[in-house]
Amino acid sequence: LGLDQLNQSAVNIREHKEGCLRVVTIASVVTMFIGKILKAFDANYPNVAVSLEVQPTQRVFEYITSGQCDLGLSTLPMENPAVVSRPVLRGQSVCIFPKGHRLHAKARITPKDLRGEEFISYRSDSVYRHRVDQVFSQAKVDRRLRYELRTTDAICKLVANGIGVSVIGPSFPGVKLESGIEVRPFSPALHGDLAVLYLKHRASGRLIHAFCETVVQTLRASRRRK
Amino acid sequence: LGLDQLNQSAVNIREHKEGCLRVVTIASVVTMFIGKILKAFDANYPNVAVSLEVQPTQRVFEYITSGQCDLGLSTLPMENPAVVSRPVLRGQSVCIFPKGHRLHAKARITPKDLRGEEFISYRSDSVYRHRVDQVFSQAKVDRRLRYELRTTDAICKLVANGIGVSVIGPSFPGVKLESGIEVRPFSPALHGDLAVLYLKHRASGRLIHAFCETVVQTLRASRRRK
Repeated sequence: LGLDQLNQSAVNIREHKEGCLRVVTIASVVTMFIGKILKAFDANYPNVAVSLEVQPTQRVFEYITSGQCDLGLSTLPMENPAVVSRPVLRGQSVCIFPKGHRLHAKARITPKDLRGEEFISYRSDSVYRHRVDQVFSQAKVDRRLRYELRTTDAICKLVANGIGVSVIGPSFPGVKLESGIEVRPFSPALHGDLAVLYLKHRASGRLIHAFCETVVQTLRASRRRK
Repeated sequence: LGLDQLNQSAVNIREHKEGCLRVVTIASVVTMFIGKILKAFDANYPNVAVSLEVQPTQRVFEYITSGQCDLGLSTLPMENPAVVSRPVLRGQSVCIFPKGHRLHAKARITPKDLRGEEFISYRSDSVYRHRVDQVFSQAKVDRRLRYELRTTDAICKLVANGIGVSVIGPSFPGVKLESGIEVRPFSPALHGDLAVLYLKHRASGRLIHAFCETVVQTLRASRRRK
């Protein structure tokens, strides 16, 4: 009886006659955008079921190419001829530091401003980590590198707790980060797009197209409001 | 030259004479606790390097058993004789709904209170999802099941945006969730511990022991403050 009804629950999901969309994204998109995007999608497609996977950036591609998810929303897409990568928002690197830090007087942070600082990094298998390290290496600036974390959320928590400073990104216009930190543009700028990703041979999929349009319009509206 | 200096960065991390601790945890622990825990660890072990991986619950065990990480901090540990699972905080299921929802007058939510509601679920490969489904199945209560999401953060965002209600957990005393939602105890209670995990044969590791103690003391202090 219990099992019958569990099966019934499963049927409920499959019953959505207008279909199901399986999306994979990264933790920082959940923090920044997912509520608004899914609210807009819900308003336009009230009978579509949505499944949302959250994975580190470098796994998003696996979920798309393996067909475990229909659509990705992530930063720093890799080049892959089988995958369409459609940029939806341009982001840029920012330096973050705790409130009250000596850097607060500066309008813009360069590598030499961070000489000798405790620097909180992304994990060493992150593409962005290597782009940041390269900038400091070219500027011949040494930092203390003791913490490396997977997610932007985790980096923001450490910085808010006064443990160090970081360069995170891409950061998007109007997005509110952790309270307790200050944010400044970082120069040289490291650009990075937020992109919608899907398999090329599925480009004509009705729900994929619908979700892309929802993402584009939601992000456009959220930029206009700032 | 550039490459030399990149190598130098790598050396910086390896140079921490007191060692390196690789921790794996889940997104909701990052949201709730990681800032305080790492701040306390930083104060006591200022020369230890820390690497933090963030993965879905069911992957945390892979990272521990494969030796990719030394220590895990996660909910709902599986039974595994090779892994020590040391509970550090007892959590309990809560029902969340948007502010202004008809449920706001209730002090405690039961399955029948949620009959016919749009219910936001965890993804179907989550243990917690099945425990919740079973409770509703036993109570013979049907819900609309259209959204399933990987993380508690994502579920909270959808509920805050008015898309539906959910039962999430385990939720811990004193933890602040997304603003824009209301939280009530859910009955029957689904318990769930937050536990520190490590391989049994590494139980004597000095840094593993140190990190466990930091977690226990930080969480105990954060409960006392409430």
